[in-house]
Amino acid sequence: MTKANTSLEDDVAVRDLAAEIFEALRAATTDGVGITRRSYGEGESAALDLIEAKARAFGLRVERDPAANLVVTLEGSDPGLPFMACGSHLDSVPKGGNFDGAAGVVAGLIVLAGFKAQGQKPRRTLKLFGLRGEESARFGKAYVGSSALFGRLTPPDLAMKADDSDTTLGACLSEVGAAVDRIAAGEPLLGRDRIAAWLELHIEQGPVLVARELPIGIVTGIRGNIRHRQIECVGAAGHSGAVPRWLRHDAMFATAELISHLDRHWRTMLERGHDLVLTVGMAGTDPGEHSIARIPGRFRFSFEIRSHNKTTLEAFYDLFLSECRLVGEDRGVEFTLDHRVDSAPAVMDADWVQRLKTIARGLGLPDEEIPSGAGHDAAIFAGEGIPTAMIFIRNRNGSHNPDEAMDLADFAAGVAVMRRALQEAAA
Amino acid sequence: MTKANTSLEDDVAVRDLAAEIFEALRAATTDGVGITRRSYGEGESAALDLIEAKARAFGLRVERDPAANLVVTLEGSDPGLPFMACGSHLDSVPKGGNFDGAAGVVAGLIVLAGFKAQGQKPRRTLKLFGLRGEESARFGKAYVGSSALFGRLTPPDLAMKADDSDTTLGACLSEVGAAVDRIAAGEPLLGRDRIAAWLELHIEQGPVLVARELPIGIVTGIRGNIRHRQIECVGAAGHSGAVPRWLRHDAMFATAELISHLDRHWRTMLERGHDLVLTVGMAGTDPGEHSIARIPGRFRFSFEIRSHNKTTLEAFYDLFLSECRLVGEDRGVEFTLDHRVDSAPAVMDADWVQRLKTIARGLGLPDEEIPSGAGHDAAIFAGEGIPTAMIFIRNRNGSHNPDEAMDLADFAAGVAVMRRALQEAAA
Repeated sequence: MTKANTSLEDDVAVRDLAAEIFEALRAATTDGVGITRRSYGEGESAALDLIEAKARAFGLRVERDPAANLVVTLEGSDPGLPFMACGSHLDSVPKGGNFDGAAGVVAGLIVLAGFKAQGQKPRRTLKLFGLRGEESARFGKAYVGSSALFGRLTPPDLAMKADDSDTTLGACLSEVGAAVDRIAAGEPLLGRDRIAAWLELHIEQGPVLVARELPIGIVTGIRGNIRHRQIECVGAAGHSGAVPRWLRHDAMFATAELISHLDRHWRTMLERGHDLVLTVGMAGTDPGEHSIARIPGRFRFSFEIRSHNKTTLEAFYDLFLSECRLVGEDRGVEFTLDHRVDSAPAVMDADWVQRLKTIARGLGLPDEEIPSGAGHDAAIFAGEGIPTAMIFIRNRNGSHNPDEAMDLADFAAGVAVMRRALQEAAA
Repeated sequence: MTKANTSLEDDVAVRDLAAEIFEALRAATTDGVGITRRSYGEGESAALDLIEAKARAFGLRVERDPAANLVVTLEGSDPGLPFMACGSHLDSVPKGGNFDGAAGVVAGLIVLAGFKAQGQKPRRTLKLFGLRGEESARFGKAYVGSSALFGRLTPPDLAMKADDSDTTLGACLSEVGAAVDRIAAGEPLLGRDRIAAWLELHIEQGPVLVARELPIGIVTGIRGNIRHRQIECVGAAGHSGAVPRWLRHDAMFATAELISHLDRHWRTMLERGHDLVLTVGMAGTDPGEHSIARIPGRFRFSFEIRSHNKTTLEAFYDLFLSECRLVGEDRGVEFTLDHRVDSAPAVMDADWVQRLKTIARGLGLPDEEIPSGAGHDAAIFAGEGIPTAMIFIRNRNGSHNPDEAMDLADFAAGVAVMRRALQEAAA
C-alpha cells in the first residue's frame, strides 16, 4: 500500500498502482481464456470484495448500497451538499476483458485514494460506485445495478431467467444482499437530488479512438436499444430427404430470410443517414433434437437494435415486426417474441462536456468529442436528469473479448482529466 | 410365442405379432418422448438383442456378422446358391419414431418365422439383416452397417467423431465387436456374389402415400446426397453497440445471406425441373462465447443436399462453394468445410420393381411406383450391383420424430407382398 502514499498526481505512480489493481482483478477472476465476472455471480462479487479491500486499505469508507453495489466514500467538509458520483461496473461478459467496466472503478479509486493520501478534503462528498449487473449477457437486461438504485426495475425484469441456470434476476439480487422487495416495489434507493453529477470513465469498445490516434475522448451521447433475449421461429420438423421444398416449414431457412431482409432494411436506413446497428448475437437449432437429416422445426435467436435516436429504434422495430409477419405467412412459420427490453438513448450534459474538454486542453490532451455506440450506466443517471458525463479511453481489439487492450499511459491521461474534474466540481 | 405357430399368412396374426414386437422395441428404447437407438449405442444394441432373442425363440439361426450387424438365417435346401437377403436398420435418430428402420426388420422376422413355423424350406437360404448405423445423426455418415459389409468405409469415415461424446466411429464399431481392422483395410466382409437380391421394407418418410391414399408403394430409386457435418463461418467477434456495419465481419449475418442465396438457387433449379432438396439441420452460434451484445465471430452449421441425379448434386455443390467464396469476400469472413461425405443415388432393379408390382396386384393391392426422397441401406446394396428393391409403407407425420404413425393393416399388406416375393425368389 506504499504506492498510495506517493503523489497520485504523478502519471508513473498512477500507472504502477493501476497495473497492480488490474492484475489483482485479473488473477481473481480469470477463466483461463479471459476473465469472467458474471452479473450477480461469483466473479463479480470477488471483484467488489477486492476493490472494497483496497479502498479500506487506502483509508476510505466502504459500504454496500441497498442494491448490493459497492460504494466508496470520501466525505466532504459540507456533507449536506449533493455529492459528486463517479464509477462504473465490475461485471463482465463470459470470457471477457479485464478493462470493460473495471477501468472506471479503478480510476475512481485511484483519484479518491490520491485525495485521501494528500489530505485533500473537498466541500462536496465524493462517492465511487462499483456497480453490479451492467452487462446484459446473463439476464438479457443491461444496467441492472444502476436501474435498481432509481427504482427502475419492473417485476418482469426481476423474473428474467439467467442464461446459465434456472435462477431469476430477483433471486440473484437477493442472494448478494439486495433489498429485493424495495426494488420490486419500484422504490428509489437513492434520491436523484442527492447527486450533483455522475462522471464515468470507460474504455471505448469500438475502433474510433485507435483509428484517430487519440488517447481519450469526451462522450457526447449513448445509444439506446431495443432487445429480445429469445425469439423462437416455430415451423415443422421433418425428414430432410422426404419433404419437398413446397411442403417445408423450415425454421432455419425462415430465420435466414428474415435476417437477410432486416440486413437490407438496415443498409437502407444507414444510407438515409440514420444511426443504427443490428445484431443477432445468439442463434441456433435445438441441440436436443437437431440432426443433419432433420428439417429444423424450431430456431431460436436474440435480437438487438441500437441507435442514438429513439424514433429510429421504433421505426426499425416496426419493420422487424412486419417482416416477422411477412416471412411467417410466406413460409408457414411463426415468430414468437419474449419480453421486449428497452434502454433509452441518452445525451451527455452539455456543460460537463465543455468542462471536460477545457480540462483536457489544459492538460495538453486532445479534446475530441465521440459518441458512444455501446451502452453505459451513465445512460441511467442521465435518464434521471442527473448531469452526466463520460471519458472514453482508447482501447484496441474492441471489448467483450479477452483481447481488449488499454495502454496504461492512456488510462493515466483519463484519470488526470477525471481528477481535475472531480476536484473542481467538489471544491 | 404361441402366435408364431398360428398361420402367419393371416393378416390378423401378422398384426398381433407385429404389435407385440413393436411394443417390446418401444419399451426397451423409450426416452420418455420418443425412442432413441443411437448408431452403435445402447438403444441400438438393445434392439438387436431383442430381435435376436425373438428370432431364436422362433427357432431361427442367429449370429452377428463381422460388422456387428444382426443376421437371422433360415437355411435353404441348396445353401450353395446365392441367398435372398432382406432387412433394414435398427438404429434411430434421438427422440425418433419406433418404425423407421425397425419395420423392415420386424417384417423380415415375421416372414421368416412364418416359413419356419409352416416347415417351409425354400431352395435358397433366406437371411434377414438387422443393420446398425444407418442414421447419420450421430456420426454424420449414413449407411455405416451396410457400407462396412462391402468394405466401403474409409479411414476418414472411421475417424469421424460422435456428436454426443469424443469417441470416434471406429472406436464405437470396435466396442460392439466389429472387426475394425478388416473394415479399415476396406476388406469386403460379405461377397456381393453371395447375395441373389436385397429386399427392404421401410415406412415412407414423406407425405406422398398418405396424400394419395395408398397403403404401400413400390420404390423406383433412392436419392443420393452430399453432406458436410460442420461448416464454420469465421468472422470477427465484437461489441454489438460499438462496431458499425461497414466494419463488421458478422458470421451469423454472413451465414444467413449464404443460406438465402442457396435457397434462391434451389428454387431456380426446381423450376427448371431438377430434383433437389437442401437442408441446414444443425446451426448455431457458440454457447460458450455468444451473448446478446456480441457480434458472432463464429457460426457453425451442417449442409445437406439430396437428389436422384448425381449431376444435379455436383452442380449445386459447385454453386454452394462459389457462394461461400462470394459471401466470404463480400463480408470478410471465411467458410471452412469439414470432410465432405457422399452417398450415391441408386436406381432399384427394374425386374424386381415389375415383380413386386405384379405381386401387389395379385394380392389386390395398388402397385404404384414411388421415388424415395430419404436414403436407405438399399442404396448401398444397389451400388454393389446387387439386384435391389424396396416396399414403402404409408406413414403419417414423417419420420425422425416421435409422431411417426404406421397403421398395422398397411404394414401387414407390405409383409404380404414381401412374403410372396421371398417365396418366389427363393423357390
